Amino acid sequence: MQESGGGKLVFAGVVVIGDEILSGRTRDINVQQIAAFLSPLGIGLKEVRIVSDARSAIIEAVCALSECYDYVFTTGGIGPTHDDITADAVAAAFGRAIDVRADARAILERWYARIGTEITPARLRMARIPDGASLIENPITGAPGFQLENVFVLAGVPRIARGMLEDVAHRLEGGAITHSVTVRLENAREGDLAEALARLQAQYPQVALGSYPWFRETEGGAMVRGVTLVARGVDHSLLADVEEALRGLSVKISPATTRP
Amino acid sequence: MQESGGGKLVFAGVVVIGDEILSGRTRDINVQQIAAFLSPLGIGLKEVRIVSDARSAIIEAVCALSECYDYVFTTGGIGPTHDDITADAVAAAFGRAIDVRADARAILERWYARIGTEITPARLRMARIPDGASLIENPITGAPGFQLENVFVLAGVPRIARGMLEDVAHRLEGGAITHSVTVRLENAREGDLAEALARLQAQYPQVALGSYPWFRETEGGAMVRGVTLVARGVDHSLLADVEEALRGLSVKISPATTRP
Repeated sequence: MQESGGGKLVFAGVVVIGDEILSGRTRDINVQQIAAFLSPLGIGLKEVRIVSDARSAIIEAVCALSECYDYVFTTGGIGPTHDDITADAVAAAFGRAIDVRADARAILERWYARIGTEITPARLRMARIPDGASLIENPITGAPGFQLENVFVLAGVPRIARGMLEDVAHRLEGGAITHSVTVRLENAREGDLAEALARLQAQYPQVALGSYPWFRETEGGAMVRGVTLVARGVDHSLLADVEEALRGLSVKISPATTRP
Repeated sequence: MQESGGGKLVFAGVVVIGDEILSGRTRDINVQQIAAFLSPLGIGLKEVRIVSDARSAIIEAVCALSECYDYVFTTGGIGPTHDDITADAVAAAFGRAIDVRADARAILERWYARIGTEITPARLRMARIPDGASLIENPITGAPGFQLENVFVLAGVPRIARGMLEDVAHRLEGGAITHSVTVRLENAREGDLAEALARLQAQYPQVALGSYPWFRETEGGAMVRGVTLVARGVDHSLLADVEEALRGLSVKISPATTRP
């Protein structure tokens, strides 16, 4: 963690484990969901790696992000099937032994007894927890995630991952909370704004200014373009000044002076 | 590139450059779009890194993926504003010089002359191209992307990135094309399928079997669950055998024997 003017800065990384995401079949939503969960805690997501369901790929990504960031979240690969190898890979990443653990097994036994389902050897795989890890409650389907060192191992199904985050929040030490203001300029183009934005960024180094062009089609089929400007920072009063300056930019780019 | 039974295997990586994605404000769609573009060419997406708009982060990700995979695609950070640093970072990743290049400048001049817009110094930044790179046509907004070594630098706006891929396809040497079959089992649970799937995977090592649980709410508010099984491989006849076996699994998990 680093110290900055407004308080300490806390960063996180995410490892998405999923051939389904890489194949293009499924679009990931866990990254957005985790980012939205971390932001109000003052924890900034700094890097995401999406890797295949391969042991070496998972180990490498977990090791790299665990060293670089305060917290790491993994999603996917903790179910009962042969391609669920995340728990074993995370154990290997930290040189820990892994086996079916009594506490996790007890959770599964209670869960499946309640719903009248047999615990098969496959289901018992979900009780494989690395030595020294603490369990993360799964309110949706029972089988727990776990925390090992600074790594939180979550399910891949977004509904379950979100449920697990409720048992993660209290373990995180947050930082200074970053706020943002957004100014959306219709009919604007980045090229007309760039110099003013660069000057503003130089004037307010404690605020991060981002510029995001967009295009959309109207119902009549015409193209409309614009730029969304986002300012982020921990200081409310600086942000208010920057927001006013950003809104002022729209005056300079009336539709008469720009073309689509 | 590796050789395999069905032909050579070609792999790609993607570097998404974007604070907006990491903040959770915007959900990335370029990963899915690039995966869908590569798949019919026989090129498999193997890893994605989403990094912040920071020079060192971009350089590190581009270097790492460029070494590991046949092709790398970057998205984002090539516009005219102060936070658009991708071109310079990619040049640095390969130790190349970068400056406004005559061919790119000519493209911008023609483009902006056509739409009656002044080329500001900010817009001219978009003609900064590393030494030795070849340009990638941008049919949407003029400013080109570029290819340097095995790295293709694309815009972040999905519509523009997609347009640029049309000028990339002919530069890629594809591999054996991977096909997939999908079997969706309602009312199934992974725990009931896991052992049969593991046996099937052992029986067909040339096919990659994936198992993806899902949950959805019916209009009446009840929860329905199921599992989507996906088999991937280059050999049609093997895939047909596996598909038949996967469909056979549904017989074993009639609603009477499973509970929600």
